[in-house]
Amino acid sequence: MLFETVTIVGVGLIGGSIGLAARRRGVARQVIGVGRSKASLERALAVGAINHGHSELRSAVASADLIVFCTPVDRIARQVKEAASYCRPAALLTDAGSTKAAIVRELERELPTGIHFVGSHPLAGSEKKGVEHARPDLFEGRVTVVTPTKTSDAGAVEKVIAFWKGLGSEVRLLDPEAHDRALATTSHLPHLLAAALAGVLPEEWRPFAAAGFRDTTRIAAGDPALWAAIFRQNRAALAEAMRPFGEQLALLLDALDRDDEAGLLKLLTQAKQVRDALGS
Amino acid sequence: MLFETVTIVGVGLIGGSIGLAARRRGVARQVIGVGRSKASLERALAVGAINHGHSELRSAVASADLIVFCTPVDRIARQVKEAASYCRPAALLTDAGSTKAAIVRELERELPTGIHFVGSHPLAGSEKKGVEHARPDLFEGRVTVVTPTKTSDAGAVEKVIAFWKGLGSEVRLLDPEAHDRALATTSHLPHLLAAALAGVLPEEWRPFAAAGFRDTTRIAAGDPALWAAIFRQNRAALAEAMRPFGEQLALLLDALDRDDEAGLLKLLTQAKQVRDALGS
Repeated sequence: MLFETVTIVGVGLIGGSIGLAARRRGVARQVIGVGRSKASLERALAVGAINHGHSELRSAVASADLIVFCTPVDRIARQVKEAASYCRPAALLTDAGSTKAAIVRELERELPTGIHFVGSHPLAGSEKKGVEHARPDLFEGRVTVVTPTKTSDAGAVEKVIAFWKGLGSEVRLLDPEAHDRALATTSHLPHLLAAALAGVLPEEWRPFAAAGFRDTTRIAAGDPALWAAIFRQNRAALAEAMRPFGEQLALLLDALDRDDEAGLLKLLTQAKQVRDALGS
Repeated sequence: MLFETVTIVGVGLIGGSIGLAARRRGVARQVIGVGRSKASLERALAVGAINHGHSELRSAVASADLIVFCTPVDRIARQVKEAASYCRPAALLTDAGSTKAAIVRELERELPTGIHFVGSHPLAGSEKKGVEHARPDLFEGRVTVVTPTKTSDAGAVEKVIAFWKGLGSEVRLLDPEAHDRALATTSHLPHLLAAALAGVLPEEWRPFAAAGFRDTTRIAAGDPALWAAIFRQNRAALAEAMRPFGEQLALLLDALDRDDEAGLLKLLTQAKQVRDALGS
């Protein structure tokens, strides 16, 4: 057992999957879930994601060795600070938020000395939400980014890495700003494009939206509030990621406009090589 | 049996699936495949997609009741005209090309009187290619667009509709230009965006490209030559489809720039409603 008690704040798809994996893989002896809705705590208990459910942070974190925040990115820093005042001094805190710099830097400045928070982001989301979609194997073979900073406690970082590896995840380290730049391109920009594309499909053309359109827009089915919060936290990096994308799109449109077959082929071949390298 | 002999020109994923479906579902008594590569004809024979393979159009279409062209869109019109000089007068010709106006209008002008071509487009592609990925159920529950014009022979249109329905497809009728406008938005624009996005992913960020990026760019793995031909044939409609997309993207970026939470939520919610309506 890596941890005696793990408390998960927010037991949706990610939090629930952490609970299931931690219990089945011997990462935690017991898992406590914190949620605002009694119904979702009951569903989390029913699927076996948690051993106990609490609606209050205070009581849920008091005995925790590890506290994992799986709440929307605009709530994480506030909840970590609140939990810091209730938890044991030796407790370790991490999160599963899709943005890192704003959260990690705020906590670096404001957390009391001796409370260790290390930022994490398991790249295992889905357009689905809710603990009913939680899976114990959600993290297997997936990358979790852990984002230590110069001021992070080495032992705390090591434990957080061991935690995600214990859930079956591969761990990569990035500083919080590098994480946000990479994810702006690999996750937030695709979401923005998917939303723009889905947004312009007229109803009468829906019957003609086949596998290509469905794949390309799948993530636009994600929770609007969660994604608005992610976009707002990562505005600067997302605007930066738009630039090379806009340039690449302009190259394609220009080749099309000039009916430049060789130019189109070159751009499409380069894109195919990248996509093939990613695998299915 | 709807047809005694169906000849399929181009036995890749689509042509091979037509052969498999036509044979298994009693749509054709025998299926002849035409291909330039002996190896692909042999694979088509091996998987049961065709009864006989020919490398020459002439001998392959002589006895056909229905000829289906499943070749790249920039070759279809030429091949149809060639086949028209070899086939029986009662033969019916159709295709499976992703663009329709250029092909259908050229053939409307240039085919000899008495030869009936009706354009078709089964919305059942994939980023995979080759007859080894062919499936007899590829068309089941999928839409095939059939694109008759004012000059189309009513009996020929009826038979082409019956053919696709016989393969398990749902049939929708559009005129060729309406097809190209709809598909510019539902298929060609997504492909262009996927290619642009895949094209700007730096190699060092590949480990951070998870399910969202993979879904959004999946079609960028498609054959560059096939897609360059599709883009070039549908340039005008694709450029037209870019406009509303560009405007929607600008609205999202503007809301982001002004940190307008309500505006972002509204746009993301509208996109989610469209995407949810499409189903998985």
